[in-house]
Amino acid sequence: MPPTVFIVSDCTGITAETFAHSILSQFDQKFRLVRVPFVDSTEKAHATIAKINEAVSLDGRRPIVFTTLVDSASNEIVQRSNALVLNMFQTFIEPLELELDIKSTHAMGRVHQNADTDEYKNRIEAINFSLAHDDGQNRNLSDANVILVGVSRSGKTPTSLYLAMQYGVKAANYPLIPEDFERGRLPTPLLPYREKMFGLLIDPQRLAEIRNERRPGSKYAALENCRYEINEAEAMMKREGVKWLSSTHKSIEEIATTILQEIRLERPSYY
Amino acid sequence: MPPTVFIVSDCTGITAETFAHSILSQFDQKFRLVRVPFVDSTEKAHATIAKINEAVSLDGRRPIVFTTLVDSASNEIVQRSNALVLNMFQTFIEPLELELDIKSTHAMGRVHQNADTDEYKNRIEAINFSLAHDDGQNRNLSDANVILVGVSRSGKTPTSLYLAMQYGVKAANYPLIPEDFERGRLPTPLLPYREKMFGLLIDPQRLAEIRNERRPGSKYAALENCRYEINEAEAMMKREGVKWLSSTHKSIEEIATTILQEIRLERPSYY
Repeated sequence: MPPTVFIVSDCTGITAETFAHSILSQFDQKFRLVRVPFVDSTEKAHATIAKINEAVSLDGRRPIVFTTLVDSASNEIVQRSNALVLNMFQTFIEPLELELDIKSTHAMGRVHQNADTDEYKNRIEAINFSLAHDDGQNRNLSDANVILVGVSRSGKTPTSLYLAMQYGVKAANYPLIPEDFERGRLPTPLLPYREKMFGLLIDPQRLAEIRNERRPGSKYAALENCRYEINEAEAMMKREGVKWLSSTHKSIEEIATTILQEIRLERPSYY
Repeated sequence: MPPTVFIVSDCTGITAETFAHSILSQFDQKFRLVRVPFVDSTEKAHATIAKINEAVSLDGRRPIVFTTLVDSASNEIVQRSNALVLNMFQTFIEPLELELDIKSTHAMGRVHQNADTDEYKNRIEAINFSLAHDDGQNRNLSDANVILVGVSRSGKTPTSLYLAMQYGVKAANYPLIPEDFERGRLPTPLLPYREKMFGLLIDPQRLAEIRNERRPGSKYAALENCRYEINEAEAMMKREGVKWLSSTHKSIEEIATTILQEIRLERPSYY
């Protein structure tokens, strides 16, 4: 029976879960996850303790609790549960207060209170932009922060949505098709925007697998055709001086982070 | 001059940045952010120290470093920099090792090494599903985990993409249009799926603002029309027993988390 891990937050719990996921992946061990978001009152803190202590009797061992609670009263309550409580905020708030020589606000749910801020509106605008400029639609690319180019199914769409959602980056994407390779030059709508283009390549074998799921047995999915398209795409990137990476074994998080580094995109760098 | 904050990671740094963003939002203070991802060698750790120490001379104060480095040698190097180093992994790994009575692997970049895992493939599949089932396209809804319903511009598309991207949830969305209100019943394609529907409402004033950005001065964007549509949509949710929330002041993170709680969606709960 895997140990139970609680994610306790006064807001969504996404920060605590992201961290818990990272650190728990350092252990060759399965964990059972219980999410307890929106714990924004001492009543809810008491209800949380009850859940935690229930897990103790079910599992026959105390669970692990990752929490980002900021309210001291709720914190004290959760701290009293029969669990290993890892309080991420409490642990780091004090050294930060000392360093900055100011007190923290102890306000709940501060991260996502920003639904009315410009930063948040930019993110939503970027998502709409990326959707409207997916797959070569809407060829007015002057407002794009980055234009992903690559053959069909090389990972452009999820990457551009991730860039928009996580970073508020307006990411268009533009497919390279066999006709572009025959013409031997960049598609015309891309010509003015070479410096904000970024290429995605992918191992032809993997590409053929992905395409076969969509259109089994088609010429489009044939390994030979995938090899041709990827060779041509790679040659085009090199010839045109477009930066690129191979998406084969990379997650969209890794692809997005690499792109931001490589093209030194201006993006919000103040909190 | 705002204090400089470094995000140092052997992988993307997204975990460290998410956490830094959360905790720094507890201070009424601006911060300048410098991201240093992919620090996966001691050479890169040395280069990072150089950057950190450069900031000391520029700012006239030592910076704050959030790090999730797992490699001990790199950690020791960064720890020697002239900064307040908050090492999130090091702080919590030891209590976890003691609690679980196993050693951590100290493997770098474990979170996102999962580009080849089923969990990751599910996320990508969910993104493709949500894109293909955006805005009432593709009315075969049996595979959806959740179907968001609401009037145009109530927040359905970004929420369904977030659900897919963050949680691997297949989220379709379906627009309610004036004809649906005239008919006075749920659109036919939705009828079999009442229990996985979730409604998004929004303050009519806010809706009119959003619609006016798209189609200024149109009937579609008129406050009176927005009031009518929202009233009707709310009446429909109540009549049909569909759970709903108001998206007006909520971020997509908050909306998504609330939906997952409310409809008790099965989703990956093991790591």
